[in-house]
Amino acid sequence: MKEIHKINLLYDFYGSLLTERQQKFIELYYSDDLSLGEIAEQFEVTRQAVHDTLKRSEQTLENYEKKLGLVTKFNKEYNSLEEIITVIDNYPREKAPEALNKVKKLVREMLDSR
Amino acid sequence: MKEIHKINLLYDFYGSLLTERQQKFIELYYSDDLSLGEIAEQFEVTRQAVHDTLKRSEQTLENYEKKLGLVTKFNKEYNSLEEIITVIDNYPREKAPEALNKVKKLVREMLDSR
Repeated sequence: MKEIHKINLLYDFYGSLLTERQQKFIELYYSDDLSLGEIAEQFEVTRQAVHDTLKRSEQTLENYEKKLGLVTKFNKEYNSLEEIITVIDNYPREKAPEALNKVKKLVREMLDSR
Repeated sequence: MKEIHKINLLYDFYGSLLTERQQKFIELYYSDDLSLGEIAEQFEVTRQAVHDTLKRSEQTLENYEKKLGLVTKFNKEYNSLEEIITVIDNYPREKAPEALNKVKKLVREMLDSR
């Protein structure tokens, strides 16, 4: 199975595009930390069936990311917003006008890259 | 047919999820401004077939927006970024520290709503 953090991020963005069953399995496995066997028992299917559904769901999520790239875009913008906070927090009061110019430049870059 | 601006926005976000043929028809009709008849002739299909493909494509784009809501989210964030630029452009130099606080608040709101 893929690393949990990555799947969770992809699921946050594209989970609504999965089937109800796929969503349920992903949540039980990755959020609620149930084992394949526990999910299998709950849904009265084989452990292998749960494994295959999870694999297919992960592949679907990654295909959406390949086509839409939202997680990449989101991370990039998140970093820019955090950088703005850092700029604001680290300029001394008398340098505030320079800080504003720097912030404006960062915001313009975000707008232009959209 | 739906209003051009809306379809173009939806297409910018979700176009890559349509089939190649759907993408082609949308581009010819909405960007290149060809008529249904002209597209029909070029692809050797009926005018009705072009119409139906466009309708289905538009419905698909709208379904993705219903599930993912990226256009709404994008517009909201775009407005916030523009508001930051406006704040920066309209504070007098001596009020720069206050402007920075206002900007920080706006950026925090953006981060928290993600």
